[in-house]
Amino acid sequence: MSGAESQGIQIIGLRGAPEAQPGDDLARMALDAAAATGITLEDSDILVVAQKVVSKVEGMLVDLRTIEPSDIALRYAQQWGRDPRQTEVVLRESARIVRMDRGLIISQTRHGFVCANAGVDASNVPGGESVLLLPRDPDASAARLRADLRRLAGVDVAVIISDSFGRPWRLGIVNVALGVAGMAPLADYRGQPDDFGRVMTSSVIAVADEVASAAELATGKISRTPFVLVRGYPYQRAEGKGSSVIMDPAFDLFK
Amino acid sequence: MSGAESQGIQIIGLRGAPEAQPGDDLARMALDAAAATGITLEDSDILVVAQKVVSKVEGMLVDLRTIEPSDIALRYAQQWGRDPRQTEVVLRESARIVRMDRGLIISQTRHGFVCANAGVDASNVPGGESVLLLPRDPDASAARLRADLRRLAGVDVAVIISDSFGRPWRLGIVNVALGVAGMAPLADYRGQPDDFGRVMTSSVIAVADEVASAAELATGKISRTPFVLVRGYPYQRAEGKGSSVIMDPAFDLFK
Repeated sequence: MSGAESQGIQIIGLRGAPEAQPGDDLARMALDAAAATGITLEDSDILVVAQKVVSKVEGMLVDLRTIEPSDIALRYAQQWGRDPRQTEVVLRESARIVRMDRGLIISQTRHGFVCANAGVDASNVPGGESVLLLPRDPDASAARLRADLRRLAGVDVAVIISDSFGRPWRLGIVNVALGVAGMAPLADYRGQPDDFGRVMTSSVIAVADEVASAAELATGKISRTPFVLVRGYPYQRAEGKGSSVIMDPAFDLFK
Repeated sequence: MSGAESQGIQIIGLRGAPEAQPGDDLARMALDAAAATGITLEDSDILVVAQKVVSKVEGMLVDLRTIEPSDIALRYAQQWGRDPRQTEVVLRESARIVRMDRGLIISQTRHGFVCANAGVDASNVPGGESVLLLPRDPDASAARLRADLRRLAGVDVAVIISDSFGRPWRLGIVNVALGVAGMAPLADYRGQPDDFGRVMTSSVIAVADEVASAAELATGKISRTPFVLVRGYPYQRAEGKGSSVIMDPAFDLFK
């Protein structure tokens, strides 16, 4: 057990973050949560932040009482027993509908992400009359938080804004990276030799998504843990853009 | 920094595993790799094992010189500059072709996994004339390794056999769980209240896939690290079946 503390990667949920309010200082919240957990952020750490807390501080709550549903939203919501105002918000957040069935809407958001209900979320939102949208520009949100952490605490950390997405072929949701700053979201091993000297041709690994998934394990879905620290993963430094992980549909053989 | 050692989840690549040969004792290899890393396996650890090393000890290498390509394999391989014998093996390992384009084959394997080239792999395989198939029954392989570790070392660990899969909508591959033993691969939070007392309706999290992705971060694609230890993740104990994560196509809104 002697080696376990000094090597490997650590995934640490930062406890004690308060419920976020519009305008709150996300960097200050993260530093406070780290302090409450007995952790000091260090250079080369990755801070993984749940999309919801980012959306809340950025004021992305929509009051459903202000929403006038369109005809299609009304019809679809009535057919499946949904709130037509919420369906309307999902349609407004969508650039393209991939599928509408069984009350769900799978769509491509204005950012380019393909996910359920355009990322519009009614859980973990205060008050039954609001829904929460994705951040307008998750990469910009991540870059801002990264800059604020450098300014406030003098540390050079990468930031990932994560959300849980469903996927085809497999059950269950997994966390992926929406916004990235300070690290390359894809690790490209193409052209490098494998253990037997053969050149690898298809080894581009979505490491930011893997870090987001790893971080989910330290949150629990029930208790409030919007910040997770990932320490010891030797990521490639780069400006980084989560949006660069979005696949051009023309090249998507899996869809 | 005081809290960092004593809390959170640790992801530790076990170094020093030799090249696997058919018939090798996988549990013994894992224990030796742990010892070489200065780690002793403990109850409640998760051991994540790369599919390739499992396939190798189970003798899933196919000598391409024994393969007679079918007409479709010959035509498709010639069109895209591929080895027709390898294409033939991919077709034989497929229960259903999802897509054939640009030299790639996306198919559903006999196990039910949807992935590129039916999981047939030519990289990190000794000799240019062989390819490696997926284990015949990854859940059985995981259960066997778990039982062997209990017998050899007296520890109760969960086992995940992982492989890297592409996915729709997003670039890059991520590691997922093919075989699982000793833990529930899905964490089901449906029906539990969120922070605001509202019941969550769609929170089934594919935790075994997230653990597999987390483990990938500690391997690196270049150096040989087939075993990764995940310590400190409070998984739900269960027999566990990686195959239970395969989605019934009839219910797959994402595909």
